[in-house]
Amino acid sequence: VSVSGSRRYLALCGGVGGAKLAQGLAQVLAPEELTIAVNVGDDFTHLGLPICPDLDTVLYTLAGLAHAEQGWGRGDESWAVHAELGRLGGPDWFALGDRDIALHLRRRQLLDEGLSLSAVMRELAARLGVAHAIVPISDAPVRTCVVTDVGRLAFQDYFVARRAEPVVRAVEFDGAAQAELAPGVQAALADPDLAGVILCPSNPYLSIAPMLAVPGLRPALTACEVPVIAVSPIVGGQAIKGPAAKIMRELGVEPQANVIAELYRDFVDRVLVDTRDAALVAKDARCLVAPTVMRTAADRQVLAAACLSLIEQLSGCAPPGP
Amino acid sequence: VSVSGSRRYLALCGGVGGAKLAQGLAQVLAPEELTIAVNVGDDFTHLGLPICPDLDTVLYTLAGLAHAEQGWGRGDESWAVHAELGRLGGPDWFALGDRDIALHLRRRQLLDEGLSLSAVMRELAARLGVAHAIVPISDAPVRTCVVTDVGRLAFQDYFVARRAEPVVRAVEFDGAAQAELAPGVQAALADPDLAGVILCPSNPYLSIAPMLAVPGLRPALTACEVPVIAVSPIVGGQAIKGPAAKIMRELGVEPQANVIAELYRDFVDRVLVDTRDAALVAKDARCLVAPTVMRTAADRQVLAAACLSLIEQLSGCAPPGP
Repeated sequence: VSVSGSRRYLALCGGVGGAKLAQGLAQVLAPEELTIAVNVGDDFTHLGLPICPDLDTVLYTLAGLAHAEQGWGRGDESWAVHAELGRLGGPDWFALGDRDIALHLRRRQLLDEGLSLSAVMRELAARLGVAHAIVPISDAPVRTCVVTDVGRLAFQDYFVARRAEPVVRAVEFDGAAQAELAPGVQAALADPDLAGVILCPSNPYLSIAPMLAVPGLRPALTACEVPVIAVSPIVGGQAIKGPAAKIMRELGVEPQANVIAELYRDFVDRVLVDTRDAALVAKDARCLVAPTVMRTAADRQVLAAACLSLIEQLSGCAPPGP
Repeated sequence: VSVSGSRRYLALCGGVGGAKLAQGLAQVLAPEELTIAVNVGDDFTHLGLPICPDLDTVLYTLAGLAHAEQGWGRGDESWAVHAELGRLGGPDWFALGDRDIALHLRRRQLLDEGLSLSAVMRELAARLGVAHAIVPISDAPVRTCVVTDVGRLAFQDYFVARRAEPVVRAVEFDGAAQAELAPGVQAALADPDLAGVILCPSNPYLSIAPMLAVPGLRPALTACEVPVIAVSPIVGGQAIKGPAAKIMRELGVEPQANVIAELYRDFVDRVLVDTRDAALVAKDARCLVAPTVMRTAADRQVLAAACLSLIEQLSGCAPPGP
């Protein structure tokens, strides 16, 4: 077990909840100590613009630009383009702010110049003053499709246009089989200084599963010799945000925090569940308690420190049985 | 000669000067009486957006949205996207306002849905309350390239990025030979009620020539049995706006209003020159005097009426010799 200063971490995350923990980790780790791998399953093209909701939520959060309550977009935003698009008969089901559109236009331009999505995110992050690596799980497209009682829906149709109301029967990831892990993710997994992997509190079906669908990630995590931990996005039988608990019920799974340990049983060593789920710890030896609900900036840093501390404790220990 | 109420007119125009006369014509003619065919040689793709400067200048002018002095874009405009693009390292040589970007995004979407540029402009015009037909000269791309002392330049590189400073040796129209006149232009030319054609005061090399380069237009104008008139964009040896006079000098042509009659000699019947060029009338029988400088809204309508009056006078008369 390395005890030098060169301990490095890989975080896997989706949107809002994941982004909060990623920000906490970025506050306690130096840029070279952290790789944040982000879901691209929500990505789509809208009005010709390449939209990457999770990557941008992480970017805006780390840049201090994210909207405090909304769960998407920026705080310092204006809506002139969206209003005029409405006047011109454009679609109004997916709202893009003016500054957000600037980012998508710049991404379009850089992609058209031949840059990979990874390289584009590096450039955008640098411009917004973010030094930590925000890496798409894959440079090739992975598109989450939700099989529901009203048909097979593209992710944003399910999630935004239909407000996650249809009943989910399965979730599929178009393009995942042909994709490969982005170079930055591969490098993080292969890094001899890798000290641990953290699955942020993101939707297991819509945020983490599309990443695990990219060939190589699940085997790498299973084979991983360093601790792999997860933070449960389920607290008190509910998702903090989004439809994770609803989807669990629709798939016949009881939404409890320790379900996460079961979903990731082939590779996860420990799951942090919230203090209000402390009773679960007695039932499931894989679960440990931490304050996982991040309301303030300080909460994010506290949870990040708890993750690193747990990895530290687990390092060098034999992996626990189920 | 038809003397019924079903006299129809075709106007050919480029940007600002042309748009002003087009607006004057739209004020004195009903929507079904006027087709405004517009240059597409300035069109280009910027940040993935399809930009049509002349079509949009005409559209914004007829919608009452054009910037009063600037010569491009809208009066009621904001710049949040442009400012943020600058922060993100985007190009700043071509400024697009927020509402203007909305129009380009909507155009991108409609083109991606398979609509022709003509159909897109119909939809956008309807949304902005413009009832008169604003028709691109061609639905297929025609791209003006300027051969200069510093090389062959794409139009916007010459015109905006290099502020029309390079010395022009020739002007070429990529794609023109493969293009065809848009259905609305063909219909206007073939309309039995066509009463006259008006070439608006637009740059002959950069606005009118790219239209004449589309196969069929020049022969149709030459064969036209109704009057074809032009309004000179050169007044007192200078262009009212833009580099027309500069280009004439660079091509060895003295910039005088009657040069227009010479450039269009195979099809134009009369050229309206400004009152301050009255002396030219004695030298060139094709020239007639009218107040062509449009400073106020009333000026536009007066010049439009002068054009229609001239066409009325010429109707049924033998075309004049040179």
